[in-house]
This record gives sequence, structure tokens and C-alpha cells, in this order.
Amino acid sequence: MLDHLSGASRLIPIIGDPVRYVRSPVWLTRTLGARGHNGICVPLEVPVDKLGVVMAGLSASGNVDGILVTMPHKFAAFGYCATSSPRASLFGVVSVMRRNPDATWHGDMLDGLAFVKAQQDHGAQIERARALLVGAGGAGSAIAHALLDAGVGELVVHDADPARVAALADQLAAVGAGRLSSGSADPTGFDLVFNATPLGLEEDDPLPLDTALLSPSMFVGDVIAGHGMTPLLAAAQQIGCSTANGDHMVEAVQDLMADFLLHT
Amino acid sequence: MLDHLSGASRLIPIIGDPVRYVRSPVWLTRTLGARGHNGICVPLEVPVDKLGVVMAGLSASGNVDGILVTMPHKFAAFGYCATSSPRASLFGVVSVMRRNPDATWHGDMLDGLAFVKAQQDHGAQIERARALLVGAGGAGSAIAHALLDAGVGELVVHDADPARVAALADQLAAVGAGRLSSGSADPTGFDLVFNATPLGLEEDDPLPLDTALLSPSMFVGDVIAGHGMTPLLAAAQQIGCSTANGDHMVEAVQDLMADFLLHT
Repeated sequence: MLDHLSGASRLIPIIGDPVRYVRSPVWLTRTLGARGHNGICVPLEVPVDKLGVVMAGLSASGNVDGILVTMPHKFAAFGYCATSSPRASLFGVVSVMRRNPDATWHGDMLDGLAFVKAQQDHGAQIERARALLVGAGGAGSAIAHALLDAGVGELVVHDADPARVAALADQLAAVGAGRLSSGSADPTGFDLVFNATPLGLEEDDPLPLDTALLSPSMFVGDVIAGHGMTPLLAAAQQIGCSTANGDHMVEAVQDLMADFLLHT
Repeated sequence: MLDHLSGASRLIPIIGDPVRYVRSPVWLTRTLGARGHNGICVPLEVPVDKLGVVMAGLSASGNVDGILVTMPHKFAAFGYCATSSPRASLFGVVSVMRRNPDATWHGDMLDGLAFVKAQQDHGAQIERARALLVGAGGAGSAIAHALLDAGVGELVVHDADPARVAALADQLAAVGAGRLSSGSADPTGFDLVFNATPLGLEEDDPLPLDTALLSPSMFVGDVIAGHGMTPLLAAAQQIGCSTANGDHMVEAVQDLMADFLLHT
């Protein structure tokens, strides 16, 4: 798989803590190789208080062309970007960085886009659809933005903390144009039902919504990755819903990251 | 080859400038994998004036377990080692670093040892032999030290700058114990004839010594790596000498580096 590793390899570290379970070293390296690019994605474990000193070292290294950013650095890393995409600037958060011509960093946030792409790749129709999104944290905010960008007709966001939904609605007022509202976690009547909470990460987590209220015509998506089928998706599939899981999102993001890093 | 790359991989960057032609990313990664260790050696291009900021970043990263050092950083990197081996301390130079239990760096200098091992692997008998070494720079100094350590009987060192040989003899006085002296590049009467000058790197370089004076019983070794057969070694082989080239030294050093990094 990684036969292109050599002294001439370009590096794209993924910075986070922990990094033990990240999949990009394998997947992005494979994607770059398939595109004929000698780039290697390596995990770099960066404690939360060491981001500055590590960023300085990576910035000074001549063959570090890009950086993937995962928790807990997604917000702090934004501060190291001289320029960024509108979707990154909106929330002040980045998931990936590449060099500008003057070697400064340009940031982007691809998580929401990747989530939407994963749903579309598995058959979801986003445009003009009615969508319920449970969870208005970092992932939920990015997904809400991407859904509105993709032309969703109506977006109801639920969060255990209603103040987060209100804040999100404020941030997305311009792009939302009246389509985003706050609501309950009841999926009745929606075309698309998405979980963007961490519920499903742990075995004894409660469900993010009442699966008895799902119906077969609904498309159900989940952000939880690396855990196989979540209880939410298992219940949805049993009912007859089409689904996409968090691994599909991680898969979708590889292509988007390669496009971003290679300027294609 | 590199199927063990994952989020759990440990990193061993090789720092230098240029790094384009270094072979350790492939060779050391393969060697570590063959020993069942999930460690990846990646090239890191570090400009001469950026060593400090890059060392700070690497030191702060939790999964950077070791660093290989190549030009132009071999002397400067010694300053970042809290502890070092006697052979590294003697010249204030390191080729490889690993973590101490308190996460500071321990340095060693394996180039001389690797050169000696390459000669032995190709049939050279070092103990009690008479050796001529041409070149008393960084490589030559390390090789002289390693030859004395390995029990060479007599070591004559030649350099275009006799002051370098005098300085080397001073530095090695304790370990040399009268076996090291300064002399001409005439190989007549020696068992072992070694080139540690850069001559042979460029196509139109003069030979480091007069090959007409070689005889078939001599073993001839060269430090020049990455250039296939040097004119010196080609002439030596035509005369009937056994030889070892710089690639053999690079090969030998992989095992020594893996031993050092894995504490075996």
C-alpha cells in the first residue's frame, strides 16, 4: 500500500490527542498514492497545551505540505491559519490545512461536507428535503451548515441544551434564510434523520431519539465512527430505512481532503 | 512493506536538508516492521537555521520516539541531547537519538560502527590489521574511532589538511594508545584501505589515492553511498581486492539503529 514512502515523500501529519484510533494515516495515504502523489499521512500525538510549539516546528519543516486536525485541536488550529474558507471562518474551526504560496496555512473544515457526501453516496436526497438533526455541538454545527449549503428545504435542530441551537441559528442566519428552526427529537414527518451527538460511542448510551417513531421512507445517518453499527442505525435498518454510518463519513472525507490538499 | 502504518504508529523522523535522497524511511521502517515494531521513519526537511524550533516540536510530540540525524545537523543536534554515548560525546556529534525515561534525548553516533560492520560483513578482518584511512573529516573521525575500538593493529590517517589528522590524533589519544599516526595516501603494505573523503561523489572527482599501488590481498572500503560503484572500488575490484561500498554501510546502520531505538 505505502510503497511510495521515500526520502522524497511529502508529509501530512494528523495532529490530535489521542491519535491512536485515527484512520487517515492509512486511508489518506492510500488515496494520495492512488492519485500518483508521494504523500504520507502520519499520526502525530500533540497534547492540548503543546499545539503552539508543534505548529511552529511543522511550519518550519520544508516537506510538511498539509496538516489534518482532530480533537482537541480543531478550534485552536484555526488560530494558526493566515487564511481560511468561509465555512471554516464561520465557526472558527478547521479540520485540514494546506500551505499558501508564501508557506502560511490555509484552513478548511470538511467534516460537514463529508457527512452530507456520505448520505448522498448512500442514496439520501438532500435538496428540498425536511431534515431533523439531533446535536448542535461542533459536528452538528458543521453538518447543519453543510445541509443548508446543499439545499435542504427545512432543517430542525434538537439539542439537550436549547441555547446551543439558538446560537447556531444566529450563526447560520444568513445561509439558513429562515430554513433552520429549533425543535424536539421526534422524527415524525421528516425525510432525513441525523444523529450528531456522541450517543452511541459507549455501549450503554441512551438512543439519541425514539426509534419507534421512525418510518421506512426515512433516511437515517449517524456521525459515530469506528464502532460499526450503532443501536440507532441497527433499529433504523430493521424498520427498513436506508442508512449511512460514521465510517462512511470518514471514507467520504478522504477524497475531499485529497482534493483540498492537491488543489483539485 | 509499510502495512503497519496506523494511528498507533510510533514516529522516527530523519531530519536533514536535503532529505530527498535518504534511504532510511524505507530501510529502517522495513527493519522495524520485521522486528514486529509499529514504527515509521519519515523524512523531515529541516533547514539549517530551523533546527531549534523543529526539535522543540518533535520533543513535544507524544509519539516521536526517536530521531535520525543527517547533514547539516549532526553536530548541532548533539546540543539537544541530555545524555549521549561516549563515542557521540567524544566528537560532539550524533546520528541517532532516542527518548530517555524522562522524555529527554539520548544521542549516539553509529556511522563509524556501521562502516566497520559493513567491512566485516564483506570479509574484512579488522583486529590487528594495518589500515590506511584517507579523510579525517566527520566521517573519517567516526571511522577512525570505530576501527580503534574494533582492535585495528595500526591506523595511518591521511588528509589533504594535516592539521585535521593532528587534531584527530589528539582526540583519539586515549583510545588510540599509540596505534594512530599521520601518513601519506600510499596504500603499499596495508591490509585495509578506506576512503572517507567525498571524492567519488562527483563524476570528475580525482581518485582519493593511487589505485595502481593497490594489490589483490588488500580489502578496500568506501563511504560514498547512493552512487553505485565508485571509481576507487571499480579499480580495486579489477585488481582483485575484496570491497565494501557506502550502500553497504547504509545497510549495516539500519540494524544498528533499530537495536539502538528498541534498546536491544
